[in-house]
Amino acid sequence: MSENPVITFLSDYGLQDGFVGICHAVMAGLCPAARIIDLSHGIPRHDARAGAIVLADALPYLPLGVHLAVVDPDVGAERRAVALRCADARRLVGPDNGLLWLAAERAGGVVEAVDIARSRFRSEPVSATFHGRDIFAPVAARLAGGASLAEAGDPIDPDELVRLELPQPRLQDGQLLAHVSYVDRFGNAQLNVGHDDLSEIGLKLGRRVKLGVGDATVTAQYVRTFADVPEGELIVYEDAYRRLALAVSHGDAAARLDLAVGAELQIGPT
Amino acid sequence: MSENPVITFLSDYGLQDGFVGICHAVMAGLCPAARIIDLSHGIPRHDARAGAIVLADALPYLPLGVHLAVVDPDVGAERRAVALRCADARRLVGPDNGLLWLAAERAGGVVEAVDIARSRFRSEPVSATFHGRDIFAPVAARLAGGASLAEAGDPIDPDELVRLELPQPRLQDGQLLAHVSYVDRFGNAQLNVGHDDLSEIGLKLGRRVKLGVGDATVTAQYVRTFADVPEGELIVYEDAYRRLALAVSHGDAAARLDLAVGAELQIGPT
Amino acid sequence: MSENPVITFLSDYGLQDGFVGICHAVMAGLCPAARIIDLSHGIPRHDARAGAIVLADALPYLPLGVHLAVVDPDVGAERRAVALRCADARRLVGPDNGLLWLAAERAGGVVEAVDIARSRFRSEPVSATFHGRDIFAPVAARLAGGASLAEAGDPIDPDELVRLELPQPRLQDGQLLAHVSYVDRFGNAQLNVGHDDLSEIGLKLGRRVKLGVGDATVTAQYVRTFADVPEGELIVYEDAYRRLALAVSHGDAAARLDLAVGAELQIGPT
Repeated sequence: MSENPVITFLSDYGLQDGFVGICHAVMAGLCPAARIIDLSHGIPRHDARAGAIVLADALPYLPLGVHLAVVDPDVGAERRAVALRCADARRLVGPDNGLLWLAAERAGGVVEAVDIARSRFRSEPVSATFHGRDIFAPVAARLAGGASLAEAGDPIDPDELVRLELPQPRLQDGQLLAHVSYVDRFGNAQLNVGHDDLSEIGLKLGRRVKLGVGDATVTAQYVRTFADVPEGELIVYEDAYRRLALAVSHGDAAARLDLAVGAELQIGPT
Repeated sequence: MSENPVITFLSDYGLQDGFVGICHAVMAGLCPAARIIDLSHGIPRHDARAGAIVLADALPYLPLGVHLAVVDPDVGAERRAVALRCADARRLVGPDNGLLWLAAERAGGVVEAVDIARSRFRSEPVSATFHGRDIFAPVAARLAGGASLAEAGDPIDPDELVRLELPQPRLQDGQLLAHVSYVDRFGNAQLNVGHDDLSEIGLKLGRRVKLGVGDATVTAQYVRTFADVPEGELIVYEDAYRRLALAVSHGDAAARLDLAVGAELQIGPT
Repeated sequence: MSENPVITFLSDYGLQDGFVGICHAVMAGLCPAARIIDLSHGIPRHDARAGAIVLADALPYLPLGVHLAVVDPDVGAERRAVALRCADARRLVGPDNGLLWLAAERAGGVVEAVDIARSRFRSEPVSATFHGRDIFAPVAARLAGGASLAEAGDPIDPDELVRLELPQPRLQDGQLLAHVSYVDRFGNAQLNVGHDDLSEIGLKLGRRVKLGVGDATVTAQYVRTFADVPEGELIVYEDAYRRLALAVSHGDAAARLDLAVGAELQIGPT
């Protein structure tokens, strides 16, 4: 057991009700030494994909620890509840619905997986609708307290875990077909595009970029940050997770272009 | 003094302003050893009843400790500020307006009560509008740090505490008249009805249920969890606090049926 | 290094995305002993003035520590990133855009200042848009862990820091011209007016006050707290930070009078 065990916690529970606080209390009771870091509880309801992206993007900045994630539209159904140990020693706990997949990949892949639906660590009686409280939080706390995965559940084959397949950008007629993968509270829209993808279509920092969104075509500056352009101007930039994103300086790009997660864009030279 | 004192904290302060953070800071300063667990600060403004329900429902999952709750529409008026010691050793701190009542009942009843309006632990000068900062948080922190109730205030008779009377369900023409007692962020509507009440009117898990809401009548499946029905279907289920609730699988029951706290429903066999 | 180092954290990041959680994780990794207190992350986007007011109002209630604040509309531009040491030993970390100014004044003024844009403590590579994660949080954590300002960055002249000038109230024709400086989640509107300013125009607790808002004139009771008047009545009162504020008992003054930050009012005797 680590001297300073850390549990990070992400969910779509919101902060309005007592869900998050109860899970904290359960974990504090079972592992008083653990520091619990709330990563976000504002994941859009039931959106395991958004949760997966936020968790995976954050992962490189999180201390090695137990990473609890609960976005669980099928709680009580046949989806598995799992705990995973990754190549870099991180342990992930949550429903097996793709939510943990991107983080597991970033942590070097899963080297051990257990089904925790009937974990000896769960709290009895297990409710049908709040596995965060009754299964996931207790298991996360016990792992943080030093328990092994083998103690936490029944072994399963890591190859059978549910994967999350994100759309990939592709070249078409000299343009890049991309998708919005996340929109943050500032209205900045993250794309499934890396810096290198853009150079493939001949775009460089400082140049203008043509964006096709639905039937409309707009242009944007490809710059380093918001402050490189006057207020109100649309930009393409590499965001803090090294992926391309759209923003409006001091404004809201998602609102201006009417973009939501999954929206398709064409990106090309002007 | 416990080695790992825990303070849980519930309020209607919201997280937009600095109210919650300031109370945390006050408590951290007075009792650095305390772990403070935010239960919820999203209680609807001034809704002591909603606060009471969230606190009491959470209580069985909270470590034994000091439970601070502030939903205080009459701050600065004649309502009392109190600290309570319950039969199970939990201590509750907050305004005496019913907010603490359900939790106190669940903790075995109040065995000692003190008025803390003039507590020696309060911070001077006491503001007229922010007793969370100036009275409740300091007293909670001192209790967590080992102080006794007798040190915190002047004794009062537990029988004089303000009680919270929730509406009770009742039988009428073979139907159950029930009320919505809480609506969570997912739109799930908790009723003031236990599992046993339903069997009185001949309803069983797996059967259909007729619901009268205002002038409308709808039917719902009485199932174990959301995942037992197709998306979009209305269900009645026993929630994680062992009370009946209405939900729409992957949807919002409160919005669909236009339900708010206090709404009356008739529940009966189809 | 203090035995119980405290970092307080205020931002406009919101709690929807992972920004706040990632900064917590970075700080927990670099200074595991630090207690991190979230002051507020609900500062209106880019509103350094609101952030400055919330931070300065909270300051007297915060343990001596490191006070991290990030409201940073010009991240990546020429604005400086700074760490400040104040006369009372508090250390402030954030962008040099006025956000820290009021707190620094309340802490007795700045006695040492360093530019941390190229701090040895920053995380490489530094992103262009998330200095909270890459510069401010790491520096705050290192200061909490015992590092000196001199280790954290390059010295700058405290006199060159960006100041925040708030509008001052002034007398005109026997009335006080005042401004709304903050509106909280309850719709209470704080004014840039102290208790003493009111006595200058002959107003006393218990009297009625005339308020000119735009073209309208309304009257309010000047009382100690909400509970001194019937529900729904408009009041002027000294708030918990010892400044005048407008409220509606059990209601929303900002909504009723259509007040936003910066709005001008005339206050005078009836």
